[in-house]
Amino acid sequence: MKNYLKLDEWLIIEDGFHPEYQEISESIFSIGNGHMGQRANFEEDYSGPSLQGSYLAGVYYPDKTQVGWWKNGYPEYFAKVINSTNWIGIHVKIDGVVLDLATCPVNNFKRVLNMREGYLSRTFVATLPSGVEVKVEALRFVSMTRPEIGAIRYRITPLNREAVVTLTPYLDGDVMNRDSNHGEKFWEEVNRTNQMDSATLTMKTKKLDFYVTTATAVELLMDNAPIILEPVLVDKDHTVTLFKYAASATSRDHAVEDLVSQSEKRVQEAKAMGFDQLLSEQREAWKNKWNDSDIVITGDVAAQQGIRFNIFQLNQTYTGDDERLNIGPKGFTGEKYGGSTYWDTEAYCLPFYLSTSAQEIARNLLIYRYRHLEKAKENASKLGFKRGALYPMVTMNGEECHNEWEITFEEIHRNGAIAYAIYNYVNYTGDAEYLGEYGFEVLVEISRFWAERVNYSQSKNKYVILGVTGPNEYENNVNNNWYTNRMASWTMEYTLEVMRNLQESHPQRLHELVEKLGIESSETKKWQDIIANMYYPMDQEAGLFLQQDGFLDKVIIPATAINPSEVPINQHWSWDRILRSCYIKQADVLQGLFFLGDRYDLETKRRNFDFYEPLTVHESSLSPCVHSILACELGYRDKAYELYLRTSRLDLNDYNNDTEDGCHITSMAGTWMSVVYGFGGFRVQEGRVHLTPFLMAHWESYSFKLMFRGARINVIVKKDTVTIHNETSVEVPLTLYHQNYQLKANESLTVETTSARMIG
Amino acid sequence: MKNYLKLDEWLIIEDGFHPEYQEISESIFSIGNGHMGQRANFEEDYSGPSLQGSYLAGVYYPDKTQVGWWKNGYPEYFAKVINSTNWIGIHVKIDGVVLDLATCPVNNFKRVLNMREGYLSRTFVATLPSGVEVKVEALRFVSMTRPEIGAIRYRITPLNREAVVTLTPYLDGDVMNRDSNHGEKFWEEVNRTNQMDSATLTMKTKKLDFYVTTATAVELLMDNAPIILEPVLVDKDHTVTLFKYAASATSRDHAVEDLVSQSEKRVQEAKAMGFDQLLSEQREAWKNKWNDSDIVITGDVAAQQGIRFNIFQLNQTYTGDDERLNIGPKGFTGEKYGGSTYWDTEAYCLPFYLSTSAQEIARNLLIYRYRHLEKAKENASKLGFKRGALYPMVTMNGEECHNEWEITFEEIHRNGAIAYAIYNYVNYTGDAEYLGEYGFEVLVEISRFWAERVNYSQSKNKYVILGVTGPNEYENNVNNNWYTNRMASWTMEYTLEVMRNLQESHPQRLHELVEKLGIESSETKKWQDIIANMYYPMDQEAGLFLQQDGFLDKVIIPATAINPSEVPINQHWSWDRILRSCYIKQADVLQGLFFLGDRYDLETKRRNFDFYEPLTVHESSLSPCVHSILACELGYRDKAYELYLRTSRLDLNDYNNDTEDGCHITSMAGTWMSVVYGFGGFRVQEGRVHLTPFLMAHWESYSFKLMFRGARINVIVKKDTVTIHNETSVEVPLTLYHQNYQLKANESLTVETTSARMIG
Repeated sequence: MKNYLKLDEWLIIEDGFHPEYQEISESIFSIGNGHMGQRANFEEDYSGPSLQGSYLAGVYYPDKTQVGWWKNGYPEYFAKVINSTNWIGIHVKIDGVVLDLATCPVNNFKRVLNMREGYLSRTFVATLPSGVEVKVEALRFVSMTRPEIGAIRYRITPLNREAVVTLTPYLDGDVMNRDSNHGEKFWEEVNRTNQMDSATLTMKTKKLDFYVTTATAVELLMDNAPIILEPVLVDKDHTVTLFKYAASATSRDHAVEDLVSQSEKRVQEAKAMGFDQLLSEQREAWKNKWNDSDIVITGDVAAQQGIRFNIFQLNQTYTGDDERLNIGPKGFTGEKYGGSTYWDTEAYCLPFYLSTSAQEIARNLLIYRYRHLEKAKENASKLGFKRGALYPMVTMNGEECHNEWEITFEEIHRNGAIAYAIYNYVNYTGDAEYLGEYGFEVLVEISRFWAERVNYSQSKNKYVILGVTGPNEYENNVNNNWYTNRMASWTMEYTLEVMRNLQESHPQRLHELVEKLGIESSETKKWQDIIANMYYPMDQEAGLFLQQDGFLDKVIIPATAINPSEVPINQHWSWDRILRSCYIKQADVLQGLFFLGDRYDLETKRRNFDFYEPLTVHESSLSPCVHSILACELGYRDKAYELYLRTSRLDLNDYNNDTEDGCHITSMAGTWMSVVYGFGGFRVQEGRVHLTPFLMAHWESYSFKLMFRGARINVIVKKDTVTIHNETSVEVPLTLYHQNYQLKANESLTVETTSARMIG
Repeated sequence: MKNYLKLDEWLIIEDGFHPEYQEISESIFSIGNGHMGQRANFEEDYSGPSLQGSYLAGVYYPDKTQVGWWKNGYPEYFAKVINSTNWIGIHVKIDGVVLDLATCPVNNFKRVLNMREGYLSRTFVATLPSGVEVKVEALRFVSMTRPEIGAIRYRITPLNREAVVTLTPYLDGDVMNRDSNHGEKFWEEVNRTNQMDSATLTMKTKKLDFYVTTATAVELLMDNAPIILEPVLVDKDHTVTLFKYAASATSRDHAVEDLVSQSEKRVQEAKAMGFDQLLSEQREAWKNKWNDSDIVITGDVAAQQGIRFNIFQLNQTYTGDDERLNIGPKGFTGEKYGGSTYWDTEAYCLPFYLSTSAQEIARNLLIYRYRHLEKAKENASKLGFKRGALYPMVTMNGEECHNEWEITFEEIHRNGAIAYAIYNYVNYTGDAEYLGEYGFEVLVEISRFWAERVNYSQSKNKYVILGVTGPNEYENNVNNNWYTNRMASWTMEYTLEVMRNLQESHPQRLHELVEKLGIESSETKKWQDIIANMYYPMDQEAGLFLQQDGFLDKVIIPATAINPSEVPINQHWSWDRILRSCYIKQADVLQGLFFLGDRYDLETKRRNFDFYEPLTVHESSLSPCVHSILACELGYRDKAYELYLRTSRLDLNDYNNDTEDGCHITSMAGTWMSVVYGFGGFRVQEGRVHLTPFLMAHWESYSFKLMFRGARINVIVKKDTVTIHNETSVEVPLTLYHQNYQLKANESLTVETTSARMIG
């Protein structure tokens, strides 16, 4: 855990240069706009440790698989998010000497991520070997309104005497991925153009033929007067300013032959508009984003900064306007893990986008999987299944690209989350039409997979699911993971329920679908039989759901007993030791009790939480949020707060000692849930917004926004009152502390909570 | 399964060139002498598919580990058997055209491995583009009496007109391993010398600094007259003969500065002696080998050839005169798997060497592990154990170099086999002194490992062993593998028994050892408690030992139901499908019933065999031999014979479709066991040789040799009689068909078996 960043409600601040944490800072201060983004690398040369990273959404590389021992069925490649043309680069020389913060004294260094306005700035004073001191002020952003555009303002002011300043902006397409499996470069140069103050560089990936043209245009000012881009003598206390605009156009969006002209056109538009105007647009765009999605916490700056950082990164990563895209686990902050889509999207991210953006955005996330249904069927077939779909663990284009048998082949619970997301979306939005259009097909194919994946155990006289890895990846190849069995059975139940509903509401469409999918009554009967006879491992006496068969054969000792020098255990213990220990990487049984929360009573949740939470080491970023939400429901407020801080400041404090690889983007949606679903007690049931908020004793207040079926409400929780304000003209059916209201257009409802909170 | 090789009692014959099987033939026709060996690559250039391989015992390379996903605890490197300087190479030109069997018509091709005399020969007629036909006769061997020496006789005879023949013998050190993890070369050249008819090449490994000098000396004859080594016009029906002698000296055996002189000295000695004399020595050496270890089967050429091939390869691979060496799984026939030592040595190979060679050789195999004890303790410590030793799964120098968590960390039953080998050796030889000298220390450290590796299950009120992989590697990370639990408990039992015996026989030595090892009575009490309360998964009703917890939750369908097009399943099924299936790669419960055969009655063995054999796919080379032995014991003779053929002709018929990688050397000792322990019913109990032989109905007879405590007996089994001949002056206590005899010096015992066999 690290604490080198300053607390602030709206800013992330590195005050004083921390080269030892440079790669961590590069992750944290990343900027993005859903279309592209980059790590907070320096514009000028830097010879210290650094992970260069500039990424374009949807542009990837099928890197030839590397394994120690090949298993039949492994995919041929792992789809990597690729480091693309570096357009931020500016070689800086002062009196002929390269400016490099790794090689000269640095003072007054300050790096700021302005989350409110959406830009990254950096200032410092460097002392060159000649003794000249220069102040540098750099500010850059990628535009939320013009997804292909980025802009930099780079200022240099000699402080103690004049200096010759040479600024050489450049484009560098000769970049690598650090995680390239075979040390291979993924790009080859196609074309470049160069003029005095503009340039283009067109690169092409060696496989899949993604073309990317990056165009730049630059402008140099002495104080406020334009000058020619060449070495210039700058007087003491005068300032030379370089504006560098860039446009990145890809063959995903343009014809290859238009890339140069389109990127040049866009970059010249940006230059013509000017940096200040672009930045002003940026502020406005972020103001709107925050208006939709901000959570305000007063009385706890660490908590406030944490949640804003999470919301900021989510909004930077995925904007939902391109249904071919998804939410990469590192967003634009690093290259690790590759792929763009994990079960994280359905299990953790969907609720955030459901509540903070237009309904189409969540719907696009669902349709993304619908479009991959054929690939998911192929995947199941490849693994020997006669029917059904198994969605990939990691994917870019619908094909599996993960290559660890215990995950690739066995972490099949992901299928359950994809089915659950359909339920979640429909339950939230009321958009039952989605089921007939897309959802039912996905549900049927997933149910088919489950029906074939179970087997009947003569020994147990029940259906069992053998050889799986549950959400807790610190167990591999277990039998009867409770969560997996439960979600498998639930999927079949829900599929049958949707079928009944379609029969009533859209019998003709159902008829078409039954024909198309070849559903026979023997098949649905089989599902019913499995639902009725699924085996769930339990300790009846203790009233516990067992994570898997044999869990109680382990030595059960709370995680607090682990020697702190051996934490995180995944960086200190050998894998077998982790596997046979009782320690849990992330919510597993508890994940099920969260998803299916309305089917289990509080005492059941309490027994399981009390048993599993002490054993959980939360070494997955996706873990603390779920535990935090359940802790809220159970009234374990201190535990909830501890877990909330852990999830919300996971990267800011580098809890898991891996932020240098990039930020944990998808878990950030879990952080959002831990406030809204946790502290706010938000649920949607039978078309109503349910809330049971409480306030941490040391907080003054907090508030959050919720979009719901065309309305948007603001929930403000104070010491003694909860106020719900309907900001729209759409009525909202509301259940606050188990009491029903109908919140009319632009109406506010305030209730005293002194007694009401007791109910929650 | 392939059938392109001819049957013969003493020869392996490829009659007619099979370029499509060239890599398989290269494996099968390999030659070796325990010190070095090589695949049956051609001397002349060959541009078709070929795996070049020339290997030196004990010379290896720590190849940087390659994995898909790093797990804490993985070793940094995998020790590879390395392809070394190619000394067999002779560039051959006929009228200026390169002779290359991939590019010209080939007739009368015959490749023969002469197992009786220990050499490889090859003859063919090639038609060159010019129309000239040349007969080529190549013969080579590596000397069993001079371990550093190899020799080649290479003859060319133009058949239809004269031809200019150019022979250019060479040394090539610029060789690669096909399985190099990172495409790296492992060697660098240090020095080379060249004279008209001799040369040396000194290479050094890039890591670990193994130096190898290869010296050659050549001699060219026209018909029988020496000529100068240069292009020569050879008349029709005249023969030019090249003799090429090579000596390979390594820094394992010589000071680096002596390598050139020593190898030159040896090669000149060989040359002076001459090819025919060397070959005559070779014949004599092999005659002695066969005298000790031959098994003669009459009436079944396929069975005869199979067993001789196995014995031949074993004798080529390991001669036991260097205690630093062990038995690599591919011997000198391929580079795959790397390492030299697996549990194969203790579980499968030891009995062969115990029965067919001097006692010191088996003892050396045990001492090899004793010398690695400190490394095995480090290995356990690295995995988080406070005390005890975990021997590596794969090793060259005592360090683990395997990198698959389910094997490296979890296939811990190997420790049991290493303990069992000590028992096996002492039981066989009566050399109880070994225990006080070396054995007890190993037993204690292994028992300590087991005692820490178990945990007490509150739920079962028994000690359990969680998260292991048993011998059946088609299950991973299972709980309570019966075999592992059984061998763990057995190890502790045996260690305590040895302790009691030492207390009686060598109390002073025991006292020293107890001091040295720090054994306290609490520790041995703990072992007793574990022995008494170990959990063994069972199906009480069916009287079955369960391979592991939950085995009966599987769908149990005999392996005969697998679609033949999907066999071997490991080349067709995804790993998860294999894991959750009931199919067994190799003997697991049955391995335990073989090792501890005197503790289980025939009905117990029968129940378990009847259950497990139909589920076993024998996709490990180590499997059929154990099943075959048990089948013999149970009187399932047809099944025993089927499994015997499968084990004995595994490589000759390429049953598992992988012989091109090299031969399955260690399983060959299992083949030997399937005759001697299987058909012969051989066991050693209480210092007596027990035999209960039977004869397959279609065999005429078979015979095998057994060394036993200084004696050697020959067991001859015919239709109606069994004759045991004591070839030595040492008496042998013998139990034949459960009746005791004392076989005096040079005495023969013959019993009628018509009725006796009924007992067996």
